Amino acid sequence: MKLYTYFRSSAAYRVRIALNLKGLAYEAIPVHLLRDGGQQLAPAYRAVNPSALIPALEDDGAIVHQSLAIMEYLDELHPAVPLLPVGALARARVRALALTVACDTHPITNLRVLKYLKGPMGLSEEVKAQWYKHWLGEGMAMLEAHLANEPQTGRFCHGDAPTMADCCLAPQVFNAQRFELDLAPYPTIMRIHANCMALPAFAAAHPSQQPDAE
Amino acid sequence: MKLYTYFRSSAAYRVRIALNLKGLAYEAIPVHLLRDGGQQLAPAYRAVNPSALIPALEDDGAIVHQSLAIMEYLDELHPAVPLLPVGALARARVRALALTVACDTHPITNLRVLKYLKGPMGLSEEVKAQWYKHWLGEGMAMLEAHLANEPQTGRFCHGDAPTMADCCLAPQVFNAQRFELDLAPYPTIMRIHANCMALPAFAAAHPSQQPDAE
Repeated sequence: MKLYTYFRSSAAYRVRIALNLKGLAYEAIPVHLLRDGGQQLAPAYRAVNPSALIPALEDDGAIVHQSLAIMEYLDELHPAVPLLPVGALARARVRALALTVACDTHPITNLRVLKYLKGPMGLSEEVKAQWYKHWLGEGMAMLEAHLANEPQTGRFCHGDAPTMADCCLAPQVFNAQRFELDLAPYPTIMRIHANCMALPAFAAAHPSQQPDAE
Repeated sequence: MKLYTYFRSSAAYRVRIALNLKGLAYEAIPVHLLRDGGQQLAPAYRAVNPSALIPALEDDGAIVHQSLAIMEYLDELHPAVPLLPVGALARARVRALALTVACDTHPITNLRVLKYLKGPMGLSEEVKAQWYKHWLGEGMAMLEAHLANEPQTGRFCHGDAPTMADCCLAPQVFNAQRFELDLAPYPTIMRIHANCMALPAFAAAHPSQQPDAE
């Protein structure tokens, strides 16, 4: 398998964790989101993924895009070390936690949105930073509200083994730390994050450990 | 089952289509996103869904939130009239198309983001409209690029039966029409949309047909 990745992309980071948890070897193909005006926007990468977004997984010649779809795909084909628990309600809870990050936190604060605020909208670096912290804070507060109050939360987002939800949580915390968001209001997220990062699968997927790290 | 819904919420619209396709009866519980400063933000609704987002499904006392997690849940428990095709790669394609709408189009253009642009950021109605059209256009272009070029596209997003991807496509087109986006650049989306809206399950889920329609 080949993974089109960028060391700091949190969507790519999710998939790297999932691959590592399952013990699946892959070749990393770095796509630099800032170099050459954004290598993901070039025709060569659009031929791989017409959405021009990272990550994409190439498996036996076929391309799968969207990090959550990639994780579901890996889970269906390689069910050992499952990323979803048993039972429809439990699976729904894990998917909903993952989507809280992937739909309602990350897309509003990702690179292409931040670039649009500064470029076409002409807003200042300060306003851009306010935007980032506002929406990241909203998303983290939603996730904390679920994790802190739902009895299914354990050492990880759902019970005592990592799931797809943890694969989304850890990269989002990395982003929050990088942009110096105050993380004190999110003790449950941070407790789970510490448990995640103690696992080699998460640690090896961290941006600093990637071949294209800067 | 009870569905916490708002007639114009495109995430709720997705789930209404899925319930109708499967022939599952449900009680609609309207939550007005604009009245009373947003009824979804009130403690009564936060007790149902701490994320304070619509929709949420109540099934036998349990709550499932996030529209895509709800659709996966319904598909696992009520597999007749499947929302996902057979085969891991086909399922991944449908999920990725659904996520292209649910992650990379809708959250950047939803009500809470538009309110923030006008309120705390103090931007004009005109700039807000530009934002909306820019990100909606980006999302529609991504979806069109996949649908127009991938051989799996049929009468619907994947083959000739509606899936989870169509449950996301139709509400997004409704939003685009409502905000008068030029839809000429998206002929494949619009062809599929016409096929969707010819089905009673889609037509009955349309915002104009809801008990809380205005």
